[in-house]
Amino acid sequence: MTIEDTRTPASNQTGGTSATSRGESPQAEEPQEAGKSIGWHKAYVEGSRPDLRVPVRQVHLTNGQSVTLYDTSGPYTDPTVETDVRRGLVPLRENWIIARGDTEEYAGRPVRPEDDGIKHTSPRGGLRNLDAVFPGRPRQPRRSRDGRAVTQLAYARRGEITPEMEYVAVRENVSPEVVREEIAAGRAVLPANVNHPEIEPMIIGKRFLVKVNANIGNSAVTSSIEEEVEKMTWATRWGADTVMDLSTGRNIHTTREWVLRNSPVPIGTVPLYQALEKVDGKAEELTWEIYKDTVIEQAEQGVDYMTVHAGVRLAYVPLTANRKTGIVSRGGSIMAAWCLAHHKESFLYENFEELCEILAAYDVTYSLGDGLRPGSIADANDEAQFAELRTLGELNRIAKRFHVQTMIEGPGHVPMHKIKENIDLQQEICDEAPFYTLGPLTTDVAPAYDHITSGIGAAMIAWWGTAMLCYVTPKEHLGLPNRDDVKTGVITYKIAAHAADIAKGHPGAQEWDDALSDARFEFRWEDQFNLALDPDTARDFHDETLPAEPAKTAHFCSMCGPKFCSMKISQDIRREHGGSRAEIEAGMAQKSKEFAQAGNRVYLPIAD
Amino acid sequence: MTIEDTRTPASNQTGGTSATSRGESPQAEEPQEAGKSIGWHKAYVEGSRPDLRVPVRQVHLTNGQSVTLYDTSGPYTDPTVETDVRRGLVPLRENWIIARGDTEEYAGRPVRPEDDGIKHTSPRGGLRNLDAVFPGRPRQPRRSRDGRAVTQLAYARRGEITPEMEYVAVRENVSPEVVREEIAAGRAVLPANVNHPEIEPMIIGKRFLVKVNANIGNSAVTSSIEEEVEKMTWATRWGADTVMDLSTGRNIHTTREWVLRNSPVPIGTVPLYQALEKVDGKAEELTWEIYKDTVIEQAEQGVDYMTVHAGVRLAYVPLTANRKTGIVSRGGSIMAAWCLAHHKESFLYENFEELCEILAAYDVTYSLGDGLRPGSIADANDEAQFAELRTLGELNRIAKRFHVQTMIEGPGHVPMHKIKENIDLQQEICDEAPFYTLGPLTTDVAPAYDHITSGIGAAMIAWWGTAMLCYVTPKEHLGLPNRDDVKTGVITYKIAAHAADIAKGHPGAQEWDDALSDARFEFRWEDQFNLALDPDTARDFHDETLPAEPAKTAHFCSMCGPKFCSMKISQDIRREHGGSRAEIEAGMAQKSKEFAQAGNRVYLPIAD
Repeated sequence: MTIEDTRTPASNQTGGTSATSRGESPQAEEPQEAGKSIGWHKAYVEGSRPDLRVPVRQVHLTNGQSVTLYDTSGPYTDPTVETDVRRGLVPLRENWIIARGDTEEYAGRPVRPEDDGIKHTSPRGGLRNLDAVFPGRPRQPRRSRDGRAVTQLAYARRGEITPEMEYVAVRENVSPEVVREEIAAGRAVLPANVNHPEIEPMIIGKRFLVKVNANIGNSAVTSSIEEEVEKMTWATRWGADTVMDLSTGRNIHTTREWVLRNSPVPIGTVPLYQALEKVDGKAEELTWEIYKDTVIEQAEQGVDYMTVHAGVRLAYVPLTANRKTGIVSRGGSIMAAWCLAHHKESFLYENFEELCEILAAYDVTYSLGDGLRPGSIADANDEAQFAELRTLGELNRIAKRFHVQTMIEGPGHVPMHKIKENIDLQQEICDEAPFYTLGPLTTDVAPAYDHITSGIGAAMIAWWGTAMLCYVTPKEHLGLPNRDDVKTGVITYKIAAHAADIAKGHPGAQEWDDALSDARFEFRWEDQFNLALDPDTARDFHDETLPAEPAKTAHFCSMCGPKFCSMKISQDIRREHGGSRAEIEAGMAQKSKEFAQAGNRVYLPIAD
Repeated sequence: MTIEDTRTPASNQTGGTSATSRGESPQAEEPQEAGKSIGWHKAYVEGSRPDLRVPVRQVHLTNGQSVTLYDTSGPYTDPTVETDVRRGLVPLRENWIIARGDTEEYAGRPVRPEDDGIKHTSPRGGLRNLDAVFPGRPRQPRRSRDGRAVTQLAYARRGEITPEMEYVAVRENVSPEVVREEIAAGRAVLPANVNHPEIEPMIIGKRFLVKVNANIGNSAVTSSIEEEVEKMTWATRWGADTVMDLSTGRNIHTTREWVLRNSPVPIGTVPLYQALEKVDGKAEELTWEIYKDTVIEQAEQGVDYMTVHAGVRLAYVPLTANRKTGIVSRGGSIMAAWCLAHHKESFLYENFEELCEILAAYDVTYSLGDGLRPGSIADANDEAQFAELRTLGELNRIAKRFHVQTMIEGPGHVPMHKIKENIDLQQEICDEAPFYTLGPLTTDVAPAYDHITSGIGAAMIAWWGTAMLCYVTPKEHLGLPNRDDVKTGVITYKIAAHAADIAKGHPGAQEWDDALSDARFEFRWEDQFNLALDPDTARDFHDETLPAEPAKTAHFCSMCGPKFCSMKISQDIRREHGGSRAEIEAGMAQKSKEFAQAGNRVYLPIAD
């Protein structure tokens, strides 16, 4: 495997092993591209074929070394690629999909006004907002040619290593066979709808790096198409591995088209939300036909995974009666209302096999929703929650019969001492299918800080085996996240995911920490910033106390001031007494006098 | 026990069980006092004597109920008390201390220019900044009359329940005998210097609520006395249980005097920092005499607990040689440098018994510092760290012989899978003395977010038995925390502490969550805000999306919009089908028709 560098020749001239901060030149040359985050560049690791190029973030250190990090930001951070949201991204996977020869293009379902929430009875009835329609290349949807499953699970089971599998193997630094095995066993999913060829494949499973999902989506109350596309690229810029579009207002179909065509990461949805819009918000008017049609609509667009609340069965609704906060999942409460209104078993549960056939034809991955997840720590791990989990285990087995990739969603609000039971039970009941959890929030008392209440639970449950974490932003329970909230949510969850990768002993995970700690110990401030999860904020915070440029190379910081720095002393001890423990022990006594004389070398010149 | 309410008669007139938001009136009347946080009031729970009044925060809910929360904010949030930082707080404990008859006032050590970092050789030499000297009532220091220990540990061991013990018993809602037992066994400390009569007593021990410390302190580089006093009251306003003054620049003595005289919480320091200033930052010039004199200086002022790095022994310094980040504790590196320079055993270790005698005479609590704590996850749980811990265990036993209350400091940077070993080993080695940890940080890669990397570790280690958490602010590793950083650090750590209280099953801890979740489920927005750890930010975030006043009573929020709210549906299900599970099960079939007809009642009027 070789690593290609995408820097322009001009910035390459700064040299490969220069001790100066190489990162600064591109910023001066390409401020739009490089933004404030200097010192790292997009590069690609090539696989076994020229069209298999896996993006990485290469951080160039001032000591001439470089550190390679996983990168989710897509072509947007590659200055050699011209992107245009009106055209969409290049369909990387198209040839791989076509080459498999098991799918075909077809006319597809016509887009209808109600797909965008425009009512027949509205004065504007029948008119879509044509200005908003995605203007990129016309495309026809694709599906399984002969009705058989065209899923990564099906391929893995018959021993095939797809380019997508090789891609994620390179990305995760494991062998392609490990990827195939984990997918075949149902312990990992590789969400990749045949109608979303733009994605850079990624994998979700406990054997791999813990992943983070960011939710976006307009609501009936606020936000626009533009904002949602922007939030998607912003979230992936900071490390979101997948994005869920949870739009509930108008223009759902059109917003999703823009998001999909521009997204380098898998997109998830909750089809029930759009189906509900089509019946004007009246849960009892939902039918299997409307739901199915919505799923096909979204599968044709390229949605990679769908949350399906098929585990909310009629009999479980009364189990929530004595709860403190009832049903807090939107999908869960819609299905509960439908079941009660009709006094019938859930149409999702009843038609689950037919749904499997549809998903298998596009390789849409199931995310089996936890509609009865607890909405307060008082309701954690109760009968309603675990009854649904057992049903999800049953549905997981059905999905696997149809070769549909499946992950299982988890709570919610769970106090720390009840978290482990969640992952252990899920792994047992669901045959180790990937667990995908929201938080969990470990206390209910901190609205405006629920990224933190939940980041605590997220780190723990990921350590114990959760494969993907759904982020929570500071606005949870209070409002819709803005740009800053999205960033804070993603960064918080990247921390939780990475802390878990380290605790799980994921190969290579700690190298990142070690590189940053080395930079910290050696006062390489620029390297410390560039290696940080959020270089911009780290740099800003440093500059707030010590803004001058020399402070970035100073062997001290604002915490202790120039007179006395503990790390400086540590370094001097090493310098004075040799590098290894043996040398220090041997030389300590002899050198103690010299050390006393050289005492002033411990300190930098004192300013006052 | 009775609860006194400090609201003015006018605001009391809003009535005790009114369904309207009682909190709004006082704000209108006393904007200065109540600030933005309406809806709660300072109240007092009286103990067995009239001068034993324990402050609580009473949150008045719109449903007429109220919730009583632990309060650390001191008289500053009591509109009936006039405070003046130039006079200092009322010495609440003075009569209790005098009544014990075992201490006496004495002339005390004269304050010298070098106490404030003013050098003899300086052109300003010998002149203290007299403008800055604390202008409050003149006081003489107090110490043990006959050289015997006047510590809460000594009293507890001989079976006495002091007013301080009763005070914390009321505060923690346990019996005074439990408090006495835990202190007597060395499993808890009640830091309360006889020269700091202003404090509202609190207790640190695993049997009690998890506590949070906030660090303040000017440095050689920045900040002023005023700022530090302001940071202290600000930190306690948000829930800091103790405050450490880690000043290292000029005016150390004077800053500390202002902080102590105005602090309602115990104040901790690291005397080594000030001692180092007295020798102009030259570690090798430190002597036991200078250190001892500094400890006495601070004990006379009223410092309640002192970090003493007596566990950094000469032989342990070489153990840090192969570390990634050497010695990162400032105190640790000072002592390491001293030991190496002189090639002698630490003067703190050698003179530990004499130090015990001094601390016992004022009831200063030891916080035995972890000078060799890991500064990167690579260095966690290594030989250096645990060698020092074993010495701290030995010193803990010596301190107990002198009846000195003792807690043990802990790391640092520790990945999740290595956290539990820290608390288990500390509890074993140190005879269950309270553990007081910094974080730990679970990854090194997120400078600017280390309140979060460490909040994760803090919650876990507190669940497993850590008694007090030292906060970490977003500025950790980067700069000095400002007002916002202090608040963010305290709130993050209150979350970690409270999550741990719940996980430990602390009696009553979950009641707070339950009250907030009830408010959330019932769309009592104002109650939700007022019960929040940070009501101001919760309210601001809500208003950012839905600013209009009616939205605060609306049965929906901006997340799902007015058309469909999951919690609204849950409520309707209950209303339609009865309250209990039996009722729902019995009535479900019969009522399903009516539900269908009443379907529209599930939704609020649709705006568009």
